[in-house]
Amino acid sequence: MSQRVFNFSAGPATLPEAVLRKAQAALLNWQDIGASVAEISHRSADFMTLAAQAEADLRALLHVPDDYAVLFMQGGATLQQALIALNLAHPGQRADYLITGHWGKTALKQATPYVDAHIVASSEAQGFCNVPARDDWRLSADAAYLHVTDNETIHGVALNLPLDVQVPVIADFSSSIASRPIRVRDYGLIYAGAQKNLGPSGITVVIVAHDLLRRSGQPRAPILDYRAHLERESMLNTPPTFNWYLLGLCLAWMREQGGVAAFAARNAARAQKLYALLDDSNGFYRNPVAVAHRSCMNVPFFLPTPELDAEFVAQAKTRGLIGLKGHKALGGIRASLYNALPDAAVDALIGFMHEFRKHHD
Amino acid sequence: MSQRVFNFSAGPATLPEAVLRKAQAALLNWQDIGASVAEISHRSADFMTLAAQAEADLRALLHVPDDYAVLFMQGGATLQQALIALNLAHPGQRADYLITGHWGKTALKQATPYVDAHIVASSEAQGFCNVPARDDWRLSADAAYLHVTDNETIHGVALNLPLDVQVPVIADFSSSIASRPIRVRDYGLIYAGAQKNLGPSGITVVIVAHDLLRRSGQPRAPILDYRAHLERESMLNTPPTFNWYLLGLCLAWMREQGGVAAFAARNAARAQKLYALLDDSNGFYRNPVAVAHRSCMNVPFFLPTPELDAEFVAQAKTRGLIGLKGHKALGGIRASLYNALPDAAVDALIGFMHEFRKHHD
Repeated sequence: MSQRVFNFSAGPATLPEAVLRKAQAALLNWQDIGASVAEISHRSADFMTLAAQAEADLRALLHVPDDYAVLFMQGGATLQQALIALNLAHPGQRADYLITGHWGKTALKQATPYVDAHIVASSEAQGFCNVPARDDWRLSADAAYLHVTDNETIHGVALNLPLDVQVPVIADFSSSIASRPIRVRDYGLIYAGAQKNLGPSGITVVIVAHDLLRRSGQPRAPILDYRAHLERESMLNTPPTFNWYLLGLCLAWMREQGGVAAFAARNAARAQKLYALLDDSNGFYRNPVAVAHRSCMNVPFFLPTPELDAEFVAQAKTRGLIGLKGHKALGGIRASLYNALPDAAVDALIGFMHEFRKHHD
Repeated sequence: MSQRVFNFSAGPATLPEAVLRKAQAALLNWQDIGASVAEISHRSADFMTLAAQAEADLRALLHVPDDYAVLFMQGGATLQQALIALNLAHPGQRADYLITGHWGKTALKQATPYVDAHIVASSEAQGFCNVPARDDWRLSADAAYLHVTDNETIHGVALNLPLDVQVPVIADFSSSIASRPIRVRDYGLIYAGAQKNLGPSGITVVIVAHDLLRRSGQPRAPILDYRAHLERESMLNTPPTFNWYLLGLCLAWMREQGGVAAFAARNAARAQKLYALLDDSNGFYRNPVAVAHRSCMNVPFFLPTPELDAEFVAQAKTRGLIGLKGHKALGGIRASLYNALPDAAVDALIGFMHEFRKHHD
């Protein structure tokens, strides 16, 4: 195979080809400095300009208010799940968690050593095929925060509910950031590993209200302290410079493509086409998620048998459609339709799905 | 400037040109999979093979014994400085720190919230121009460990002392790993940010004795727990895949070049040439570090005035010699001579230094 395939991987995920071509051309000599961007000091004027531009582009894309800080960090979303508890709650303080899939459980697990973690509601007993109704949430009056997962990457569940609660909402946006316009002010803190809808793995974006950072939190090393990272403009220690560079190229590309509103319209249309195929397949392709909470980013589905799932993945690969195997926690198929995935990929997948069904139904 | 320059940056630092060319050729289509290595699942067979090969190459290069684990992590050396205390000491337990420069102080600072950090000796009063004599170390009988910095990147100080102590030695090898053969068994844990002598920033190598990981440590999130990372083979969460790939290419390149012994001989010869120039410059170029503790990796030096330092850096840049400005904590000049720096770079620097002195002494 000598050409680029269509890559539905859930993350690390497909990157815009234009971004990869730019990075390729500059890999040995970036901006005529005679070195790769990966080889220079993060404190050099050239890199500081790149870092500032990435922040400006992210702020513009997501309309981040001035009283929110933007941090670029290492460690993935999982490290954030510990830092949130360490920075925003007193030792042992009550913190609320809404569980709508695998990643909500991970968030809870990372926070448990530090807070009195309380599950306000969970759809686990229903196989994470729905979101608990707002009226059924048992919110704590004195919680430090409410943690939610905006989009559950494995189960393909979008929260898609108004979040009118009395405490700051902390949201894992790893697989849905920049997929649709949001009101940042509805959240106290938003975090996202970049490797799904923003860029490469190895860099994580945190958007946090400045006033939340006044909380004293718990005893912790400076490297685990949001304020320490903010004071040093995300360069408390050597940042992942090449990852930051690729993220910056992706953010600039998203702005060129029309920004989040343009992607949102495209994402909704593409997901709609794919879900319509599932629903019209007479049960051959099944997605069990309640329609109101189906994800536009990650579309998991199942064929009649695990054997057919495996055959589907294998045949798809021969057609240049890769990354379709479901997460091992769930099995089946998963098509991730992130911003960087071309429309032609979705059309090719849909074409293949019609054909595969014709031969196996 | 259309060609590659000679890059003396202290980190992120120069990478082997052969590695960059390989990465460039594969940036859109790695191993004919039709996608970049940055775009595929860390759990894919292709990536798992890459990860295992990187570990095998690191083990071979450094002769890591089988009863030591190798971890690839995010967060830089600074995060390790917190994790060491969290994983290897009881809450508030005594831990010993030898301070021979800026980074030893950072290690102490990150651990202070978790342990009773005790300075066994410090050369700070002497401007970090020496290493405290072994007889002057006030070791604690009951310390969880002794932390040392093998090479102080800013001050250019190599520890260069036998470490016969009764407790496990934890060593920051960020700027000296793979620069010379070491006996891994002399250490309980070795850690190194990759961005100096191993590869790009954004990935950190940890080599740790399995029996140390049996310690209970302190309450902590799984993402801060070495055992959790080990159990998941450094894929507890999405790793920095492209960084791991570049690191792997660098490790393979080092093996091709003859391994650590070959680099050690070359590094010693190059440093010797540069220090000889400093010492024979009649005081024009000054390095204040005691000869027995001069670093082969980072050579800081000072010209007669800060103005001349600045002029030196500026003129060097016009000759294609970059990254020579000293760290802001120290000023002056710093030439970092990592494994990936070509010999021709050192020769070019030495030629320029002779010429610069002729015109300004």
